[in-house]
Amino acid sequence: MNKAILIICDGLSDRPIDELGGKTPLEAALKPNLDELSRRGVNGLMHTIDIGIRPGSDVAHLSIFGYDPYTYYTGRGPFEVAGIGMDFKEKDIAFRGNFATVDPALTITDRRAGRIDNTQDLIEELTKIKIEGGRFIFKKGVAHRVGVILRGDDLSAKISDNDPHITYEKVQKVYPLDNKPSSKKTAKIVNRFLEKAYQVLAAHPLNKKRVQMGLLPANYLLLRGAGQVPNLIPFSQKYGLTSACIAGAGLYKGVGKMLGMKVINVSGTTGKEDSDISAKIKAAIKALNDHDFVFVHIKAADTLAEDGNFLGKKEFIEKIDKALAPTLKLTDTFIIVTADHTTASTLKMHTSDPVPIVIAGRGVRTDHVSSFGERAVAGGKLGFIRGEHLMKIILDLMGKAPLFGA
Amino acid sequence: MNKAILIICDGLSDRPIDELGGKTPLEAALKPNLDELSRRGVNGLMHTIDIGIRPGSDVAHLSIFGYDPYTYYTGRGPFEVAGIGMDFKEKDIAFRGNFATVDPALTITDRRAGRIDNTQDLIEELTKIKIEGGRFIFKKGVAHRVGVILRGDDLSAKISDNDPHITYEKVQKVYPLDNKPSSKKTAKIVNRFLEKAYQVLAAHPLNKKRVQMGLLPANYLLLRGAGQVPNLIPFSQKYGLTSACIAGAGLYKGVGKMLGMKVINVSGTTGKEDSDISAKIKAAIKALNDHDFVFVHIKAADTLAEDGNFLGKKEFIEKIDKALAPTLKLTDTFIIVTADHTTASTLKMHTSDPVPIVIAGRGVRTDHVSSFGERAVAGGKLGFIRGEHLMKIILDLMGKAPLFGA
Repeated sequence: MNKAILIICDGLSDRPIDELGGKTPLEAALKPNLDELSRRGVNGLMHTIDIGIRPGSDVAHLSIFGYDPYTYYTGRGPFEVAGIGMDFKEKDIAFRGNFATVDPALTITDRRAGRIDNTQDLIEELTKIKIEGGRFIFKKGVAHRVGVILRGDDLSAKISDNDPHITYEKVQKVYPLDNKPSSKKTAKIVNRFLEKAYQVLAAHPLNKKRVQMGLLPANYLLLRGAGQVPNLIPFSQKYGLTSACIAGAGLYKGVGKMLGMKVINVSGTTGKEDSDISAKIKAAIKALNDHDFVFVHIKAADTLAEDGNFLGKKEFIEKIDKALAPTLKLTDTFIIVTADHTTASTLKMHTSDPVPIVIAGRGVRTDHVSSFGERAVAGGKLGFIRGEHLMKIILDLMGKAPLFGA
Repeated sequence: MNKAILIICDGLSDRPIDELGGKTPLEAALKPNLDELSRRGVNGLMHTIDIGIRPGSDVAHLSIFGYDPYTYYTGRGPFEVAGIGMDFKEKDIAFRGNFATVDPALTITDRRAGRIDNTQDLIEELTKIKIEGGRFIFKKGVAHRVGVILRGDDLSAKISDNDPHITYEKVQKVYPLDNKPSSKKTAKIVNRFLEKAYQVLAAHPLNKKRVQMGLLPANYLLLRGAGQVPNLIPFSQKYGLTSACIAGAGLYKGVGKMLGMKVINVSGTTGKEDSDISAKIKAAIKALNDHDFVFVHIKAADTLAEDGNFLGKKEFIEKIDKALAPTLKLTDTFIIVTADHTTASTLKMHTSDPVPIVIAGRGVRTDHVSSFGERAVAGGKLGFIRGEHLMKIILDLMGKAPLFGA
């Protein structure tokens, strides 16, 4: 048993829902393959960070892979820029960027500038802006999105967003979030840059043309999620396992890239409801031929729950289940299915309820759990674990854990 | 309920094994007495260090007795020298030693010098070697083994072994494992000693005679497992319990001695499959007359699993079970049975899977567990505990735990 495939279904778990007869979407779903994995495996519940901690997807993934988010996480930015394939260096400050529309009073009229897509010329102009103390690097993301890196000495990620996160609010000045000189300096650099960026964007011919055509101009750059690129030991080095990452959504490709995994792009995967999960699973099984460990990320259960669409979530779980069928034929491979956090459809948000986990494969201490549901697995023999334990357990099952003592 | 007997069966627990119908050796064994203890007691699973940590026997025992191995453990040496009854002082550096055979190029041809036993004269010569900065003290162990203590000021255990641990490799220079001056100094002292030891041993008449007789000369001293003798609060002082230790294998006598327990030697106990476990249990019951707490160690389940001999392990567990019969008649005594770690017969190594534990005795919150197996106890009312919790629980059951608050 030298291989493992870890399937993280984002926001898979939920809370009981009246309209589903008091069941969760996972409990209500028809999911013969997941149930079979539960029967073959050891089941339990996992607090991906700790009891009562409500995790974002980014920190939850870090924790599940054994990287303490309290040490390594300073913001979402680095994951986003990694996810769109930007090259980064340790200590770079990375941001999630949006092209947006503001009126002359700097009130946001559209946070996405009409979902503009042809931003390449705008980005080129932004790249020409020179600011003392830091260099700004850009890469176009999906539609109105743009990855932004600030490179320089003694910079800090402890700065606020200029993005008020809602429409019809004024854009904000970036301010330092602590008293350190590096944070004050970074805020100053970013504010100077944003002023110049506004001048450049507002005057740009593309935007003048857009206005003439009745389209919203992309005249402002919104930045959020500043994070400093951490110095992570690559996954392969940390665990002695060659590894691959298969994900549709950028953030999770970013996780894979930051951990030094081989990021495998699979066509038809969108990070949305329509994603070709079967293609992902097939690609993962193929990747097991030349990788010890394959991480598969499946996104949409989270998004559907955030929309309060518990029926859609149930159906999407049934789609996941169908796609998982080929994993049941794997030999010499541990199959682990879990979530990064609960997304409660009733609250439309992430919650800290522990997530179900099953580990199937030869040698595991099976239990009597015959259904992969939040409450069914609670009687499982894995008990309650935390995210930080998972890689240690997998490594130990493989017979590759380091020995403490003699 | 003022007494307790803690029976640690080394490597007792295991993983499910196909050839045993998917049962572990413990689950497959006929063990009416262990099952009766489970029925009378409260059951659960214990991570002797923590979830996902694969423990050596030494650190696992420290943890079970409530001594944090991350604080107190620096290497195996101190346990070994304690186990053969050497007197040691705090801060002594202790090693496991072997007489070995090397060829003129210092390549090891036998790590055990033909399992030489009459090493007393060799040890006497080694004792005469003077090295500035440290004094070397020896005691003969079983056969080719020798306990080695280095005593001096500002010494460190952060040095490597000179033992390459395999035959047909060259012996190694000892090197410091960190940058501290004490480690560099200790490595230097040990290397100087080893050079002189080689000269003394190679020229020794006993070895010349052995060569003439066609025997392998014991011309080299291999050192491994350097550890600094920690400053442990004696068990009796820590818990207010007079205590005794009954073990066959040296390491576990060493644990008992290091904790200041009365080490009781029982004839017929070997630390092997043929050990007279019944004699141990009888001696333990007798020791309860004048001790509050008796630790019994039973070794061979671990060794058998490390040989992959799961059938032998099952049979040995049945032998343990028979020997435990008299404990069922004890009154006024808590009986605790557990393991220090799992040894997976399939992998032939220690693993981090939690170990079963039962605590029987008046006043415990009994549960519905009726079989002492890895999976059966997982439903027990003790839940999951860590090694560090066990002594606290025992003390509390006895009504002797300190109060926090008022």
